[in-house]
Amino acid sequence: MDAIARCVKSEHVCVTREDSFGTIFGRWQGSEPSLPAVGTGSHTDAIPLSGRFDGVLGVLGGIEAVASLRRVGFKPRRSIDVIMFNSEEPTRFGLSCSGSRAMAGALTAARLQTLKDSLSNHSFVEVVAAAGFGKLDEQALLDAARLSSDSYSAFVELHIEQGPRLEKAGLPIGVVTAIAAPAALTVDFYGDGGHAGALLMHDRHDAGLAAAELALAVEAAALATGVEDTVATAGLVTLQPGAVNSVPRHAHMELDIRDIDGPRRDAVVKKILGAAEEIAKRRGVRMETAFVNSDPPAISSPTVVEAITAAADTLGLAYMRMVSRAYHDTLFVAQVVPSAMVFIPCTGGFSHRPDEFAADADMEHGVSVLALSLAQLSMQ
Amino acid sequence: MDAIARCVKSEHVCVTREDSFGTIFGRWQGSEPSLPAVGTGSHTDAIPLSGRFDGVLGVLGGIEAVASLRRVGFKPRRSIDVIMFNSEEPTRFGLSCSGSRAMAGALTAARLQTLKDSLSNHSFVEVVAAAGFGKLDEQALLDAARLSSDSYSAFVELHIEQGPRLEKAGLPIGVVTAIAAPAALTVDFYGDGGHAGALLMHDRHDAGLAAAELALAVEAAALATGVEDTVATAGLVTLQPGAVNSVPRHAHMELDIRDIDGPRRDAVVKKILGAAEEIAKRRGVRMETAFVNSDPPAISSPTVVEAITAAADTLGLAYMRMVSRAYHDTLFVAQVVPSAMVFIPCTGGFSHRPDEFAADADMEHGVSVLALSLAQLSMQ
Repeated sequence: MDAIARCVKSEHVCVTREDSFGTIFGRWQGSEPSLPAVGTGSHTDAIPLSGRFDGVLGVLGGIEAVASLRRVGFKPRRSIDVIMFNSEEPTRFGLSCSGSRAMAGALTAARLQTLKDSLSNHSFVEVVAAAGFGKLDEQALLDAARLSSDSYSAFVELHIEQGPRLEKAGLPIGVVTAIAAPAALTVDFYGDGGHAGALLMHDRHDAGLAAAELALAVEAAALATGVEDTVATAGLVTLQPGAVNSVPRHAHMELDIRDIDGPRRDAVVKKILGAAEEIAKRRGVRMETAFVNSDPPAISSPTVVEAITAAADTLGLAYMRMVSRAYHDTLFVAQVVPSAMVFIPCTGGFSHRPDEFAADADMEHGVSVLALSLAQLSMQ
Repeated sequence: MDAIARCVKSEHVCVTREDSFGTIFGRWQGSEPSLPAVGTGSHTDAIPLSGRFDGVLGVLGGIEAVASLRRVGFKPRRSIDVIMFNSEEPTRFGLSCSGSRAMAGALTAARLQTLKDSLSNHSFVEVVAAAGFGKLDEQALLDAARLSSDSYSAFVELHIEQGPRLEKAGLPIGVVTAIAAPAALTVDFYGDGGHAGALLMHDRHDAGLAAAELALAVEAAALATGVEDTVATAGLVTLQPGAVNSVPRHAHMELDIRDIDGPRRDAVVKKILGAAEEIAKRRGVRMETAFVNSDPPAISSPTVVEAITAAADTLGLAYMRMVSRAYHDTLFVAQVVPSAMVFIPCTGGFSHRPDEFAADADMEHGVSVLALSLAQLSMQ
């Protein structure tokens, strides 16, 4: 990262546009500025206890890719933008990719109204106003953020793989041909609670044990497809009152289910919801469920994939085509702009943890492929 | 509660002694003040989302019992104290009954040194100093708090039952003959964490799923004794990083296991620890466990039980002898002072939840029995 940081420091980076959903850094004007531009970018927000490469590489790497093209005297035909999307992670507002969703027109005012800042419990509109972006209602914010269909001709996102396949294969570059379909849902179990000493076992309606059973059912449902592309996770479980001497009366769970096959993903979700219902009934606890999101997979643009593979070939860097099981801002950008992604290896495939790591050499390879892809796409 | 509150408001309540482990309200001097006194009391701290009767009844009820004896012109032989024990709940310092443990000499300086304020993360000594009790080390604090063997001749605690037996039996008074032996332990599972999309199911070492399995094993171990007196609870489970899109890398659990039979309780604890080890090994997660406390049961003093039953008889109030599965400051006071407890019904047996409730009439019965028991014990 130091290598990129040093380069970025030496460049002039200006902000072209900044709003509540993202920031566009220094549009590099092309020789035909009226043409749809070429975009690259990612995010810089993070989950708790995360690493420092997830997303950040795609923003600083995008800035460095443009800077390197400037240094070598390249003259783009189409303008080139580097975009930083806000809130790719669901940590702050409970919804992943709120920035890229909004830009792609995949976020409704009604949904935006439901988002609360997990820090302040303020609404999105209040947070936007407090951040100095003006007092606008949800629809006005979304209208201002939405990319028109002729904003960009192509979009490329550089990212660490967040999985072990490139490292295992000993390859420096991954070309993403599809992004798995993600779904997230909340499940709340409500029991009676009670004193952990006085409430006899047979009189309990323990919301925490319902959550424990469902967490295991989530794992079982993913394993039952027999396909490694299915993953399902109970990553967030909170118990109330959360005291050692009290039977849990409320368990809040947030579940994440993904597959590159949309219908197979939906079948796993259905199985999990069925299990939740059965558990709630058997344990005598009340249940509420809601979808946080349920998005279709994204298929990469053949044109953009070709630009990336051509760039890797030109640079003599071996690559593999691969599916992204993690999702990214590109999942949404791809709904309105022909898009693809460049992956680089990360140590052990680790991500979303403090020891997430990508080597300088791998980042240089990624930024080089990105730069050359952007150059080529800007000339088309 | 209003009835008691009104009475208390009309009385003069002064503080005899206040330190970091508890407060003794207005010693009512007896005609033979050199004799060991009679004590009553309870606590006023609470767990999150709790009710307003657990503990509070025994403090305000104790004050009201003394006030009522004064009003009728009773003259005690032994002095009578009302005690408010600090931190009966483990919520603030992670250890239940730190006040009564200290007074009973059942808390060591070494253990006290490990306690941290869950709010500020300060040590107990630091919190004591900040509260204005002076800069004393752990041993000095404990020495000052410890009750000598001739401090009290008898102790009676009034409390809501926190269980449904009195209500079901239609009886106004419970006389506690024993308090179940409580144990609490922490279990921490450490896995690898990772991205919920990218980390394939077979590559996971999910600390959250280990916790889910153990929570269910805790329930199974309690049920397996086949005795209703065994209860075991996973009341506190926290996952890190606790994000919907991240595999849990750390699960912290606090488990509560109780039985009126000490060895049977220990066998359940052993079974749970065995299950934790098996789960950790099978799931490839690291495990750490520690005992928070493991206390013996308390057997009530026949003399004090007799004073309570005589008081109930005198007042024409039917009672049942019963075991307390919840534990109380009396569990520790009983180690140095002949003790027993008076229970009154609470609606549905609910406790440790916001709708915990005891009727005014039941509280009046409890306070009357307490007053008459104290009067009798003060004359012995």
